Amino acid sequence: MLRWFEEAGASSDVIISSRIRLARNINTYPFSTRITSEQTDRMLADAGKVILTLPVAADFHDYLLEDLDEVQKEALVERNVISRYLEKQEKAMFFASEDEKNTIMLNEEDHIRIQCIESGLNLREAYKRAGYLDDCIGKEITYAYDDNFGYLTTCPSNVGTGMKASLMMHLPALGNSRKIQDLISEVGHFGINMKGLYGEDGTGCGHIYQISNQKTMGQTEEEIIANLENIAQQISGQERECRRQVLKNDRSKLEDEIYKSYGILKYSRRLKFKDAMLFLSELRLGLSLGLLEFQEKTDFIVYQLMIGIQPANLKLIAQKDASEDVLEEIRARFIRENLPLIN
Amino acid sequence: MLRWFEEAGASSDVIISSRIRLARNINTYPFSTRITSEQTDRMLADAGKVILTLPVAADFHDYLLEDLDEVQKEALVERNVISRYLEKQEKAMFFASEDEKNTIMLNEEDHIRIQCIESGLNLREAYKRAGYLDDCIGKEITYAYDDNFGYLTTCPSNVGTGMKASLMMHLPALGNSRKIQDLISEVGHFGINMKGLYGEDGTGCGHIYQISNQKTMGQTEEEIIANLENIAQQISGQERECRRQVLKNDRSKLEDEIYKSYGILKYSRRLKFKDAMLFLSELRLGLSLGLLEFQEKTDFIVYQLMIGIQPANLKLIAQKDASEDVLEEIRARFIRENLPLIN
Repeated sequence: MLRWFEEAGASSDVIISSRIRLARNINTYPFSTRITSEQTDRMLADAGKVILTLPVAADFHDYLLEDLDEVQKEALVERNVISRYLEKQEKAMFFASEDEKNTIMLNEEDHIRIQCIESGLNLREAYKRAGYLDDCIGKEITYAYDDNFGYLTTCPSNVGTGMKASLMMHLPALGNSRKIQDLISEVGHFGINMKGLYGEDGTGCGHIYQISNQKTMGQTEEEIIANLENIAQQISGQERECRRQVLKNDRSKLEDEIYKSYGILKYSRRLKFKDAMLFLSELRLGLSLGLLEFQEKTDFIVYQLMIGIQPANLKLIAQKDASEDVLEEIRARFIRENLPLIN
Repeated sequence: MLRWFEEAGASSDVIISSRIRLARNINTYPFSTRITSEQTDRMLADAGKVILTLPVAADFHDYLLEDLDEVQKEALVERNVISRYLEKQEKAMFFASEDEKNTIMLNEEDHIRIQCIESGLNLREAYKRAGYLDDCIGKEITYAYDDNFGYLTTCPSNVGTGMKASLMMHLPALGNSRKIQDLISEVGHFGINMKGLYGEDGTGCGHIYQISNQKTMGQTEEEIIANLENIAQQISGQERECRRQVLKNDRSKLEDEIYKSYGILKYSRRLKFKDAMLFLSELRLGLSLGLLEFQEKTDFIVYQLMIGIQPANLKLIAQKDASEDVLEEIRARFIRENLPLIN
């Protein structure tokens, strides 16, 4: 069973994944800011039992946060299976489908968080599944809901639909052209947040960016999704145009950069995360543009490597207590072994 | 028939080649500073005829400088077959053996310049051959010679033995350690010149250095060679010690640099000469230290690529009027096609 980051979806030249997240609370328990430890235990037991018995959750695995060690938890955060918020909770549980496309988190910032991810541009499928999970749970549990406000949530910013729709985008051409900062402020006018992922300075290490809706109220779920799709298509158009321009004006330099990146990825003995992300970004661009080709037909997905080379995921497959130095060696080996040969 | 840069000689971990050059003049013609054009014609005809009929020169090819175009001449300079001085002369001729180990130049700074090159540390063999050529020519031509001074030459710095012995050395570890500048001034105290080759700033692009004797008078040929060998062995010892230290303290980083260099060389689509020299230098170091291994047994010599990627030699095999941009592409392709696969 392929996980969402092991397959390519629609518009995958630019869009890596689509995610829908729904925030829900149980009306019989205080919100997380006021809930006691004992109430949390009961909430987890109640909600956990309901979800475990849902037919739709039959292929979900259930996890108690306390059963996982730090590396396991961190690796799940890196793979977007659970949120950073959940990982930091003292008590929590979650349910995740084997393909890691669906997660239900209990005792996150809200009692219940439903998250569905799809490869490429496919917010509608992600929303369909999240909505279905929401309906199934909502039949057994009475949500905190207000006829005027909609779903009530711990943080006011989520009240209403309780929905956050987001897209992960790969924008190497825009990123290199420095148009990206303008774009980030521009999309704000259309109610969209845009930020770089995997980087401390918000510039998006590996040119990976996330866009998401700012508001959850005053718009229907369909309107939120349509608006985000619309903005994503405009950004994608700009990125593709920018790539065309580079191809037209600087093809030889671009090809060289992409092939050099491949050579470094294929032969390095040590790689820092940030450097590896940049080289993988070049490789992803080169594959999208057809500038390089693998020797044999392959289902290789660059983002899969971007996930795999993150520290905790590397530690999981190699050595849990690996130092930064050792991790760099493990990262280089992991890439060497997983990167197909090119012509 | 292998050329000197297509084979590895003694101490080839550090020493690329040994060269002996003898300066001789014909006592019946004025030195080059005072010779007329008409006398030059006669000198070339006379000396040319003598050399053409020497049995020892039977496998030499003879060339008139004027028959060669700019790219051909420049390529010969790059391969050390002829000197930059000769290349700039209006009239000149030269004889070169097919393995490019032996050259006799006519109308260089002196009437006759004999040059013999060997791979690795082998000044004695080079001297033996140069001496033999010298004896053969000297039997037919009366050299300008003074019992007190020895051989008389155009430039006073060559008077005496008329001999310049030189070694080309690869000093990547010393070069990176910045001890090289100290070394350059230090060897001066022992009558040795040391300079970086292939670089405008004297630091030696690709960490290739040349050492040679400063004086040609007051020492016999044997003493000059023994002194140069002695200094070369001391420098080699320092270089090897420096490599051992890096291996001991920074093996993982060194391996990574070497493999990254290989990856870049193997996949680049464009390469500037200076960058390529640095990556090839890393590769040469890696092979010397056994840090990387070729998949199949091969006679591959890194310095052969260093010769091959120089502008005129590239133009010769590809396109004589290639622009700098096109040359970078040709250079990258040449390296890709000639670099064996590693494990």
